[in-house]
Amino acid sequence: MDRTNRAFTGIATFLRAPFCADPATLNADIAVLGIPFDEGSPFMPGSRMAPRALREHSMRFVGGAGGLYDPETRRTLLAHEMNNGLIADMGDVDIRPTAVEVTFELITEAVQQILARGALPVILGGDHSITYPVVRAFKEPLYVLHFDAHTDYQPFVHGLKYTNSHAFRHITAMSTLLGLTQIGIRSLRHSPETVDEVEQAGHRIISMNEFRRLGPAGVSAHVPDGARCYVSIDVDAMDMSLVPGCVSAEPNGLSYTELRDALAAIASRLNVVGFDFVEVNPLLDVGTGVTAYLGAHVVIEFLGNLCASPMWKKRR
Amino acid sequence: MDRTNRAFTGIATFLRAPFCADPATLNADIAVLGIPFDEGSPFMPGSRMAPRALREHSMRFVGGAGGLYDPETRRTLLAHEMNNGLIADMGDVDIRPTAVEVTFELITEAVQQILARGALPVILGGDHSITYPVVRAFKEPLYVLHFDAHTDYQPFVHGLKYTNSHAFRHITAMSTLLGLTQIGIRSLRHSPETVDEVEQAGHRIISMNEFRRLGPAGVSAHVPDGARCYVSIDVDAMDMSLVPGCVSAEPNGLSYTELRDALAAIASRLNVVGFDFVEVNPLLDVGTGVTAYLGAHVVIEFLGNLCASPMWKKRR
Amino acid sequence: MDRTNRAFTGIATFLRAPFCADPATLNADIAVLGIPFDEGSPFMPGSRMAPRALREHSMRFVGGAGGLYDPETRRTLLAHEMNNGLIADMGDVDIRPTAVEVTFELITEAVQQILARGALPVILGGDHSITYPVVRAFKEPLYVLHFDAHTDYQPFVHGLKYTNSHAFRHITAMSTLLGLTQIGIRSLRHSPETVDEVEQAGHRIISMNEFRRLGPAGVSAHVPDGARCYVSIDVDAMDMSLVPGCVSAEPNGLSYTELRDALAAIASRLNVVGFDFVEVNPLLDVGTGVTAYLGAHVVIEFLGNLCASPMWKKRR
Amino acid sequence: MDRTNRAFTGIATFLRAPFCADPATLNADIAVLGIPFDEGSPFMPGSRMAPRALREHSMRFVGGAGGLYDPETRRTLLAHEMNNGLIADMGDVDIRPTAVEVTFELITEAVQQILARGALPVILGGDHSITYPVVRAFKEPLYVLHFDAHTDYQPFVHGLKYTNSHAFRHITAMSTLLGLTQIGIRSLRHSPETVDEVEQAGHRIISMNEFRRLGPAGVSAHVPDGARCYVSIDVDAMDMSLVPGCVSAEPNGLSYTELRDALAAIASRLNVVGFDFVEVNPLLDVGTGVTAYLGAHVVIEFLGNLCASPMWKKRR
Amino acid sequence: MDRTNRAFTGIATFLRAPFCADPATLNADIAVLGIPFDEGSPFMPGSRMAPRALREHSMRFVGGAGGLYDPETRRTLLAHEMNNGLIADMGDVDIRPTAVEVTFELITEAVQQILARGALPVILGGDHSITYPVVRAFKEPLYVLHFDAHTDYQPFVHGLKYTNSHAFRHITAMSTLLGLTQIGIRSLRHSPETVDEVEQAGHRIISMNEFRRLGPAGVSAHVPDGARCYVSIDVDAMDMSLVPGCVSAEPNGLSYTELRDALAAIASRLNVVGFDFVEVNPLLDVGTGVTAYLGAHVVIEFLGNLCASPMWKKRR
Amino acid sequence: MDRTNRAFTGIATFLRAPFCADPATLNADIAVLGIPFDEGSPFMPGSRMAPRALREHSMRFVGGAGGLYDPETRRTLLAHEMNNGLIADMGDVDIRPTAVEVTFELITEAVQQILARGALPVILGGDHSITYPVVRAFKEPLYVLHFDAHTDYQPFVHGLKYTNSHAFRHITAMSTLLGLTQIGIRSLRHSPETVDEVEQAGHRIISMNEFRRLGPAGVSAHVPDGARCYVSIDVDAMDMSLVPGCVSAEPNGLSYTELRDALAAIASRLNVVGFDFVEVNPLLDVGTGVTAYLGAHVVIEFLGNLCASPMWKKRR
Repeated sequence: MDRTNRAFTGIATFLRAPFCADPATLNADIAVLGIPFDEGSPFMPGSRMAPRALREHSMRFVGGAGGLYDPETRRTLLAHEMNNGLIADMGDVDIRPTAVEVTFELITEAVQQILARGALPVILGGDHSITYPVVRAFKEPLYVLHFDAHTDYQPFVHGLKYTNSHAFRHITAMSTLLGLTQIGIRSLRHSPETVDEVEQAGHRIISMNEFRRLGPAGVSAHVPDGARCYVSIDVDAMDMSLVPGCVSAEPNGLSYTELRDALAAIASRLNVVGFDFVEVNPLLDVGTGVTAYLGAHVVIEFLGNLCASPMWKKRR
Repeated sequence: MDRTNRAFTGIATFLRAPFCADPATLNADIAVLGIPFDEGSPFMPGSRMAPRALREHSMRFVGGAGGLYDPETRRTLLAHEMNNGLIADMGDVDIRPTAVEVTFELITEAVQQILARGALPVILGGDHSITYPVVRAFKEPLYVLHFDAHTDYQPFVHGLKYTNSHAFRHITAMSTLLGLTQIGIRSLRHSPETVDEVEQAGHRIISMNEFRRLGPAGVSAHVPDGARCYVSIDVDAMDMSLVPGCVSAEPNGLSYTELRDALAAIASRLNVVGFDFVEVNPLLDVGTGVTAYLGAHVVIEFLGNLCASPMWKKRR
Repeated sequence: MDRTNRAFTGIATFLRAPFCADPATLNADIAVLGIPFDEGSPFMPGSRMAPRALREHSMRFVGGAGGLYDPETRRTLLAHEMNNGLIADMGDVDIRPTAVEVTFELITEAVQQILARGALPVILGGDHSITYPVVRAFKEPLYVLHFDAHTDYQPFVHGLKYTNSHAFRHITAMSTLLGLTQIGIRSLRHSPETVDEVEQAGHRIISMNEFRRLGPAGVSAHVPDGARCYVSIDVDAMDMSLVPGCVSAEPNGLSYTELRDALAAIASRLNVVGFDFVEVNPLLDVGTGVTAYLGAHVVIEFLGNLCASPMWKKRR
Repeated sequence: MDRTNRAFTGIATFLRAPFCADPATLNADIAVLGIPFDEGSPFMPGSRMAPRALREHSMRFVGGAGGLYDPETRRTLLAHEMNNGLIADMGDVDIRPTAVEVTFELITEAVQQILARGALPVILGGDHSITYPVVRAFKEPLYVLHFDAHTDYQPFVHGLKYTNSHAFRHITAMSTLLGLTQIGIRSLRHSPETVDEVEQAGHRIISMNEFRRLGPAGVSAHVPDGARCYVSIDVDAMDMSLVPGCVSAEPNGLSYTELRDALAAIASRLNVVGFDFVEVNPLLDVGTGVTAYLGAHVVIEFLGNLCASPMWKKRR
Repeated sequence: MDRTNRAFTGIATFLRAPFCADPATLNADIAVLGIPFDEGSPFMPGSRMAPRALREHSMRFVGGAGGLYDPETRRTLLAHEMNNGLIADMGDVDIRPTAVEVTFELITEAVQQILARGALPVILGGDHSITYPVVRAFKEPLYVLHFDAHTDYQPFVHGLKYTNSHAFRHITAMSTLLGLTQIGIRSLRHSPETVDEVEQAGHRIISMNEFRRLGPAGVSAHVPDGARCYVSIDVDAMDMSLVPGCVSAEPNGLSYTELRDALAAIASRLNVVGFDFVEVNPLLDVGTGVTAYLGAHVVIEFLGNLCASPMWKKRR
Repeated sequence: MDRTNRAFTGIATFLRAPFCADPATLNADIAVLGIPFDEGSPFMPGSRMAPRALREHSMRFVGGAGGLYDPETRRTLLAHEMNNGLIADMGDVDIRPTAVEVTFELITEAVQQILARGALPVILGGDHSITYPVVRAFKEPLYVLHFDAHTDYQPFVHGLKYTNSHAFRHITAMSTLLGLTQIGIRSLRHSPETVDEVEQAGHRIISMNEFRRLGPAGVSAHVPDGARCYVSIDVDAMDMSLVPGCVSAEPNGLSYTELRDALAAIASRLNVVGFDFVEVNPLLDVGTGVTAYLGAHVVIEFLGNLCASPMWKKRR
């Protein structure tokens, strides 16, 4: 008898994709990789549990004929990919507590292995520090689009280099970076210097007022059509009311539809070569796991829009 | 000395209404009935505890002279009903774990007993599977208005017929059904077939975009004035940010005022013969019980608007 | 080596301000005072833990050069005050459980000591009952601006005088009161009499519809420029979706930006002589403490706007 | 069809006993009275929710033929009382927040009404401050047996008289008191004076070492056979490992069987004229409610042993 | 580089054993099977989440050279099995909510498939109702040893047959049953009839007093050496203080060492043909998951003792 | 008026001791130092919040005349120290997330500063990794007595050196170490090599059976009278039932009285030059904070016994 596969049953992989423990055997278009690292968290830790929670909630999207059907748009997303085994779950990067540089090397290596196999890396954090070792795995030029309430651009002082406030200072120093756009920036816990530095380096900060002026599609309009880009999504880009299980939640954030539409515009027009989703804290989330569910939702819907784009279809 | 009846004191019945253990003695206009059933829940269970939680939070609305005064509209609702004993709490339907068909018979029977006494059944779920045995208790034709993020219209396969995803397939098969309208439908966890089938059967699905186009009052405009209707309200019709204690919460939902105004329009123009409110999970809610409180709020305000409508007054 | 002072380290005082245990030695412009009192709470208690939680979350705003930089407005707030020791944390008023009148005397005395030293009292509740003994400490005429979902104007019956529903009845009886404005009032758990009485006494109730008609700046427009005013902020003025850790949360409340902008307008135009922030319940909040964080955020941003106003600069 | 009455269904009264709202109509041997008062709590509040939680967990003991069957002893307890309506639930005393003396008068009055009807008062707290107004309702001499980790014998200083640390100083001042025995006393949070004073007043403090020397039956051996006695049980008499939902839990406490057997010895030999059970905090308990369940268990088993004693049978 | 495999990383299978999705390919000595079913739960649900939680906590036992080393006994357990792939994780039985008989058929079938491949089934519940469909999969005679606070022997009335209170009435009716021993029985929530019936049918009930008289090894002494037996372990056999995350926890239970030693005695002397572990509720457990950890611990240690027994070695 | 200082009021320092921000000004016998570091945690993080929680619960021990009175022994502890300002709270070591070696240097330096001022360092972790940088601050020979369920003696492989499983391998390599005794060792999650290595290096491992054979005083009997020793206490030395808020809790641990008495024997006979208490996780503890309370209790009682010892009195 066929299985009905309720979400609470079975070994939890992302979208019930097959687990590919050995990257050398990877044979899929999309490779989901967990990075359960939270040593860079500035207040309460726990986002190391997010890959596990995102996988569990992703299983709620699996059922029936495969794919996600949107009753609003009447489109079905990811059906081809889910039904034809084009998604692989690579499990998690091995974490070496207190040996951050070792962990970061393992992260970079894991992403490179995915890239070497021609698959799109879909990264599940962890805290936001992991975006640095992920992005440095890419060897060809790219734009970075960064959704977040914070610039994560702290200076390297006091021996601190690898927290979740430092990733984008590393990234802006990479020779591969064509441009950085930071969207949703609004926290009052910035220093003026870091904001100035980002802009003086030629990058863009899109505050909430500007976001609302530009509209969701406008925030990526300055990136050339079809350009290679990496997208990094901090769940705190969304409004605090939507993300009770995020330690760094801030008020006055993007609504779900604002984020969804901004990502959809990117998916439809740019060449997304990888993306990450970070900063859900399942240990401290509401008992229902609403924040983890919303996280899985955003990742899956963005992935669906990517796979539905002309560029993706051409590429594959 | 008169009691002040703080909400944390006393035996918890809905709005402190008298407990009517024997339906044969029911003598009230409104009969509140709990159905603490959650065996049909697809992910995390616990909504069986909702009738108890809704009663507890309902007691926060009782005090002073009776009735709910809205400082916005300057109207007082339910004063007549609360002060004259026109509301009765029937307690809960007896649940028979793993013997679902027995439980469903008991549900139908309990609703019929209420109807036989001429009272309006106000049903507190439980998960959404209970709407099927509730609606089949009505023997005269009616419209069904269904607020939900999901169509709950799964096919009967794999031996599954009675989960919270099946209720509306049962209901559309009833000869008493004049028409079904599903409002707030938006989850990506649908299959295209179920959505198509609903519409091909002549029913209406009102997505969020259409909801916003029609406006709250517009969603029921196609039902004739004064028509008999049953209203089923899944708490997940409202936006995820408002319902952290609902396992099936989805983003991009109705705001509280959108739901309130849609229900108020129904109350003022149609002949509501019963309604249910389902899917609060108190075990997993935030410690303050915000979702249960909002649930009690929606039920009470809708009931208040019903009792304030010309149709209600005429009928009684 | 300089400290980096992560938020989870160190003795928790508000914004890491020095602790001033003896009011006689107070030498600062701003004096933060906790009032961990929740005996007046009508349903679930726990807001007594709020001063501790607000202090802990306030420490997330301390770092680097001092001050809060808003990437939207490009302004830095509180830098002068934080860097020059102009803020003092007075600790908490001593609470005498079950001896409410003694506690209230201690509250009044503590506020008077702050006023005697020429500092601005910033009061962290506790439940809303504490606004009464705070406001009575002021001996010169003032306006009171009150953000809340509820009027807190219950009559003194059944021996009840000091709960969090009574504070504003006490305040309207004070000879020092020039006028009371209640903003955000919307709960259905009012009695019509209390609302009428407030208005018949010449005070203003601004419901949500009127708030949206007037706009954030409009709600205080009727108070003369530069008038002395006290501001009392119940966290439930904001929408339920933002305050899961508030027992009295109500739907259809102010958004964060609506509250922020209303407070900013007050800060820029009136002479704020003190303010309080009440009704966060850390025991029942989400594990991340989002409600306590938002509370600290509102207090700090309002304080920042106050200190940036021309009136403040002139006064100091 | 008969109901199966699962514990999660139905209006929650203690052991599903009928609710007797008017003491004048009380006609039962046993009257359960809730006192949801926690204003006297020295640290985290919330025990006001205990009567509600104890009722809910008590319903787990109701089923089948009625009564509690102990597979160890092969005895059935309470069957007669449960099957013949000899237990009544009086609901809760009306609480007047911040008006403690009024509340205490209402408590005393409610207990007196029960006594006037010849029923045994079974009191569900609330915090331990409530034992004072309960015991003063008894007008004939009695012994008090007090199970607790703390003596609750603080002096009346600083305006404090009615907290949960003061009850037994009030009680020792009563002319009706024949003798006080405090059992399980062990907290390091005592002052030497209070311990000395208890003993100098001729009362007994039984520490854990002495408890183990005397054995469970030994702790009440000094009270004459058949003497009238009142028993006050703080859940923290039991070991911390058993009561995670008690704010004042202390290590090195009584095991469940030690408490059970000490109570059973009292039940079998003395004339228990009333008892209370206090200090469960459901808001902070483990999600399963283990502490509330254990509380209901202790109350019900003690009550069962009482009703099985020769003295009880003779009296009724 | 070798992985260090911290417990929070990687796809969660039991002891990181390979996932065997197709029973036809099973090639291992031990087959772990999850049964995430909790529809038979009489109070709060949630044990459906236990297989997932037990797997997660089992991963804490994996590291280094493989196997569990006991610093007390200086023995290493399971090293051979873990290092040679002799354990397989079969995932979970497909659950059909509200279609209990279908689910139970799937359970029986899944166990039969394991038995057909010659592996030992290690069953992770779910609630205790699942033991019935598990045990009926065995076609050769066996003894059943049942650790529990409750007899789970309710009569089949009111349409109830499949709850977690009915499993052992089904089992005693099986022709394969050689004898049933119930160990740890102590709950006051039994009816005398069910206890009598168990004994009259020739089965043994070992209460706590008898357990302590017999000693851990004594409880199985009446089963002949080398006899085939099935062991069913309800986590509530252990004392309430150890299992805060078990809804049916009862005081006066087995200590961990009592259970461990009783199981070790069984492992060393009898031919254990399968076992289950049930009734952990991860949704309601303490945040640290202590109950799930203890559950994984008991299962793994018992399995280790089994594999270290002479009988096991002979059999394989 | 004197303050009553309820535990929920005031700036939280350990035992309300004065906060000494500058070690150069330290003038006390006892210096409490928090080390909110948990980057070395192998499963769920959160013990970084323990210093804050231990301080909060320590305030429950402050009241009245000062000191802790034990109603069992009739002794008063710490009165002299608390009443004469002999305890100072040094706040927390500055933590540098992801820069572990920097943090560890700061820890060592902070302890050295305390030692240089002649005070006894009382260290509040954090996870157990912090014992390494603490112990290396001591420059004169000492014994180390280590209470724990685990040896924390993992080899330095895979780049891991500084987790909470490595501290005692560092310590055994120190030239200052006269001998290490590990008490309570019982986890099945050891490797045989690490246990063997500890013993081959001449150190002692005292398992639970041996602990019970030796008795609490016996475990330190082999250390010469008056010898200098450092004591490290992992809360998981105690039984799992007592420490629900400890991620690494293990069954079959020390009871509270066993740990208390073992520590008391050490205090009375050896020259304790410092001690630490680690591994409470307040983020995941029960809502009442029982584990944090027990932690504060153990620390304070041990400190009290230390200060009551003849050796301490002679030294000061």
